[in-house]
Amino acid sequence: MRRVAIVGVGMTKFGEHWDLGFRDLILEAGVNALADANMQGNEIDGLFGGTMASGKMIGQEHIGALLADYMGLTPVASTRVEAACASGGLALRTGFMAIASGLHDRVIVGGVEKMTDISADEVTVALGGAGDQEWELFQGATFPALYALMAKRHMFEFGTKEEHFAAVAVKNHLNATKNKYAQYQKEITIQDVMESRPVAPPLKILDCSPISDGAAAAVLVPLEEARKYSDTPIEIIASTQASGSIALQSRRTKTALYSTKIAAEKAYSMAKLQPKDIDVCEVHDCFTSAEVMAIEDLGFFEKGKGGFASFDGETALNSKISINTSGGLKGCGHPVGATGVKQAAEIVWQLRGQAGKRQVTGAEIGMTHNVGGSGATCVIHIMKRAD
Amino acid sequence: MRRVAIVGVGMTKFGEHWDLGFRDLILEAGVNALADANMQGNEIDGLFGGTMASGKMIGQEHIGALLADYMGLTPVASTRVEAACASGGLALRTGFMAIASGLHDRVIVGGVEKMTDISADEVTVALGGAGDQEWELFQGATFPALYALMAKRHMFEFGTKEEHFAAVAVKNHLNATKNKYAQYQKEITIQDVMESRPVAPPLKILDCSPISDGAAAAVLVPLEEARKYSDTPIEIIASTQASGSIALQSRRTKTALYSTKIAAEKAYSMAKLQPKDIDVCEVHDCFTSAEVMAIEDLGFFEKGKGGFASFDGETALNSKISINTSGGLKGCGHPVGATGVKQAAEIVWQLRGQAGKRQVTGAEIGMTHNVGGSGATCVIHIMKRAD
Repeated sequence: MRRVAIVGVGMTKFGEHWDLGFRDLILEAGVNALADANMQGNEIDGLFGGTMASGKMIGQEHIGALLADYMGLTPVASTRVEAACASGGLALRTGFMAIASGLHDRVIVGGVEKMTDISADEVTVALGGAGDQEWELFQGATFPALYALMAKRHMFEFGTKEEHFAAVAVKNHLNATKNKYAQYQKEITIQDVMESRPVAPPLKILDCSPISDGAAAAVLVPLEEARKYSDTPIEIIASTQASGSIALQSRRTKTALYSTKIAAEKAYSMAKLQPKDIDVCEVHDCFTSAEVMAIEDLGFFEKGKGGFASFDGETALNSKISINTSGGLKGCGHPVGATGVKQAAEIVWQLRGQAGKRQVTGAEIGMTHNVGGSGATCVIHIMKRAD
Repeated sequence: MRRVAIVGVGMTKFGEHWDLGFRDLILEAGVNALADANMQGNEIDGLFGGTMASGKMIGQEHIGALLADYMGLTPVASTRVEAACASGGLALRTGFMAIASGLHDRVIVGGVEKMTDISADEVTVALGGAGDQEWELFQGATFPALYALMAKRHMFEFGTKEEHFAAVAVKNHLNATKNKYAQYQKEITIQDVMESRPVAPPLKILDCSPISDGAAAAVLVPLEEARKYSDTPIEIIASTQASGSIALQSRRTKTALYSTKIAAEKAYSMAKLQPKDIDVCEVHDCFTSAEVMAIEDLGFFEKGKGGFASFDGETALNSKISINTSGGLKGCGHPVGATGVKQAAEIVWQLRGQAGKRQVTGAEIGMTHNVGGSGATCVIHIMKRAD
């Protein structure tokens, strides 16, 4: 199996792009990533794109071909993968596999979603397709409702408080103010979160990631060729994926994601590392409570202690472990298909030492944690600067 | 790169399954494939599923996780790929890549679509998402219309007649009567086709593949382990893919698919074979005219001669080259995400000598040709019995 490195990353600003369409977004991110890799488009021999619900959001399927065409890359082999909000991370993993196998040599991986062309109600229904349509969405359980059930149970079992969840939003908004690509450029306080409009108790509007447009891209090559394109190639030392029950009702526990635990175990084993070795991690905080559970499931904190740790500042920039330096889904925005690739871009910038005001001092090992639905898919990557 | 073999295949009957849902279909196909491979579900370590438009057709995304869950295979890594009507072929290629890379060892690949839960009008709009939504569907160009434009041009340039296209439907219906899984079990005549209702001239209703429900699955393992599971493993000796412009308007020619030509060139080169070496081929006959162009683009007949050859019986069972022994999309049915995997199942049965009344005598090398949209994606596989 060939070793794989990222030699270029790029993205659009995340936010409400009233003046840009789906095609414009991916083009901008793709061109930025190619430029960052000092690579011409015609050198690319494979494209892997992650998009969740383009059928419902822009009336378009066949996204792989669309991306290749609008990036001017035909006849490149171009594949769309979909795993709800983990579509981007899964595109990265599939691109990794393409190079590891030897079937492809220079791959561009993209994630994109254009969510603001339909109403917020329609987006809620489209996102509901990430859960079990027949047993959840059809019965009225939207995503905030599903995550609220998990958050409530976490509070009941471990004494986690709403203020603990709120602290995650405050930290992620602060990080976002240091990231020019982030949707929100505004600090908030715990009081702001606590007083914000209820969505599905205990989750309030400021506990929820927003509806966003955006795209992100990354260029992958075999490690042995990486120095041709970058002085600081970032090696992918683990790429893993696991599934869990799509409906919440079928799970043994509501306070942990089985898919995260399995994918994390595999990732640590593949990278021959432990949780304490990770310096910086982008976790999937679609809701603040999801970040609390993620930092436990990934082994950074004991189960039940994630809320307390967040409230105590142990996940802030340059603290015990820097979580979501990009601003996360909450602060940076969450164009669902793009998120997993954006997480990878953030880790690449951190490991290169290019993260500016949000740089984690001496960051050597980084991780991304991308979740689909309420946890039925988890994709994890671990990266380090190539020797 | 590890060599890869198929050791089990299975499918559902294609047709209108009013009593079966999306989940039931994939479960039936998956169980059949596992049984055929003498394999237990818990041996599987990767799942790749192809589905085109589940968001619009059943309100469900996150299909990878759904498949893993309903087949009882969690926490297996499970990925949905989408390339419109080539989603199944692309799932097969991604599964191939997973094993070739060494990241996975025993993979199940599935294709599924449940199309009859919405109206035919809604299906037409959903399928329109396979073309360029903004420049084609939104302007009123449905898929029969797009293929009709190509068919008209083929008639103009090469003297192809409507009766030539009709001959494809007649042959595929005849083959379908010999396949218990086929949607249509009824022979038709050229006169039937010529007198059938116009859809988009020159295409009539009997030139068009139907709306279908169905699923197909295949089990892949490294070649060196294949004999543990099957006495007649079928090796995948080429797996290629190419993209073309998503909109018809951007193409230099309308009488050939650029993506097919590129993917075919790569496939012949990868397998070190020529068109004359192929004994049996499943081509993407979403319309009869598409089969005529495909047998030219794949190199079996000279450009412009495909219609004449079809009319003269050169593609019939056990003729010059046996095309669409399963009945093709026209006769066997076309649940869009399932078709590419069904094509592979048919070739496996042919190469094992298990195709019964539709067996191609002495078939040693087989090919599948799966197209997305009006040709913006093409996926090709070449297979042979393992030595």
